[in-house]
Amino acid sequence: MKQNIYDLDIFFSGYFNLRKNESGLNLVLEEPAMDSLLPDLQGIDVLDAGCGFGKQCRFFSESGVNSVTGIDISEKMIGFAQENNSAKNITYLQTALEDAVFPRESFDLVVSSLAFHYVEAYDRLVDDIFNWLKPGGRLIFSVEHPIATAKPEQQWIIDEAGQKMYWPIDQYSIEGPRSTKWFVDDVIKYHRTIQTYVNTLIDQGFRLIRILEPVPSDEFIIGRPDLEQFLRRPAFLLISVQKR
Amino acid sequence: MKQNIYDLDIFFSGYFNLRKNESGLNLVLEEPAMDSLLPDLQGIDVLDAGCGFGKQCRFFSESGVNSVTGIDISEKMIGFAQENNSAKNITYLQTALEDAVFPRESFDLVVSSLAFHYVEAYDRLVDDIFNWLKPGGRLIFSVEHPIATAKPEQQWIIDEAGQKMYWPIDQYSIEGPRSTKWFVDDVIKYHRTIQTYVNTLIDQGFRLIRILEPVPSDEFIIGRPDLEQFLRRPAFLLISVQKR
Repeated sequence: MKQNIYDLDIFFSGYFNLRKNESGLNLVLEEPAMDSLLPDLQGIDVLDAGCGFGKQCRFFSESGVNSVTGIDISEKMIGFAQENNSAKNITYLQTALEDAVFPRESFDLVVSSLAFHYVEAYDRLVDDIFNWLKPGGRLIFSVEHPIATAKPEQQWIIDEAGQKMYWPIDQYSIEGPRSTKWFVDDVIKYHRTIQTYVNTLIDQGFRLIRILEPVPSDEFIIGRPDLEQFLRRPAFLLISVQKR
Repeated sequence: MKQNIYDLDIFFSGYFNLRKNESGLNLVLEEPAMDSLLPDLQGIDVLDAGCGFGKQCRFFSESGVNSVTGIDISEKMIGFAQENNSAKNITYLQTALEDAVFPRESFDLVVSSLAFHYVEAYDRLVDDIFNWLKPGGRLIFSVEHPIATAKPEQQWIIDEAGQKMYWPIDQYSIEGPRSTKWFVDDVIKYHRTIQTYVNTLIDQGFRLIRILEPVPSDEFIIGRPDLEQFLRRPAFLLISVQKR
């Protein structure tokens, strides 16, 4: 079953506050890494798969693209996006990634931020996106790093003084659902190995352009020693590929 | 300084016994994965970078290749290879990988088994190998997985009953030397992230063909429950790339 935690009230408000204060991990780790992978945006057609509040759609809209399509499973997210991040060249659609339907060769660029690890059938999604992309088009996505999702608890091992000792790995090669707690209980994430993330793309006919395991830049670490933990274990994995 | 632990008597005898009894990890995890990545061997010129006892060179020699060149830093290894795994189409050379010199476009295939994590200047080695390969040629190599090398101890965390609880990660994004114990103290391995392993190859002009994080096959696990641990954390990373 497709998961829509974002429409639960408790989740939506927690997540909204997390993203609003702009000090979350997305801002310091995931977004700069994603931006560094973007191609020239002039005149292109973009799909944002799992667009959430529409912040990235708005950024694209103001960066010279021809069109942006934002899809998200959450009615609340799409509602917020339509109200706060609309523009003439943006279309928002409420749909699960797995149910989305677009004509072949609709987009030059598909981006997806931290959504694919909620999708069970990664291979089918990759197949869909390949079809939606024009020849030479790119897919750029981020997921929670397999090192982060292997063990469902997603917690550091702490010593008696409360210090982080190390990040535990287990069941790395046993792919499948992990039930974890994030604002609400029983958030299901699908753990996959790096081998699966990459080889599925190559088998589909994509060419690998880049893999990133982003770390906070020095400027961020100086102000926020709490970020140093992301030198100790990677939080995100980003992959950029091109349709040949 | 280039490291040559293999010529220390204590190391050589320990390693020799490890490989001789053929029940080590190499046999059940690394070698099948490496074999699965090999291209058609008929009539090609192969370099085995870090050839050790020459077992793989001999396999190539008997598999229809035109020539095999095996290089290794260890005089003892090369001596053993020359004595036990010689053939008309095999040339063994004692040299560090970092000091090897070959004409441009000498090889169709460069393989390297569990050697690159001993090399400090990975980027320079990748540059050399790119030059030694003919256009369309492949580099296929294995290293200890970055999940395995991040923390120098390379040990499971064990509970009071001696059971493996989890594999610890730390300092993942801090690349560089790790001093560990393997038959002898102070074996230096160079930890690198997956991002570095992959992007260095792409920047050089290679096209990624495959990433493997091998697990033992069911047939091996049934006979050897001790291997189940390699479903819990990956031991090896294999990468196959092609010169464009």
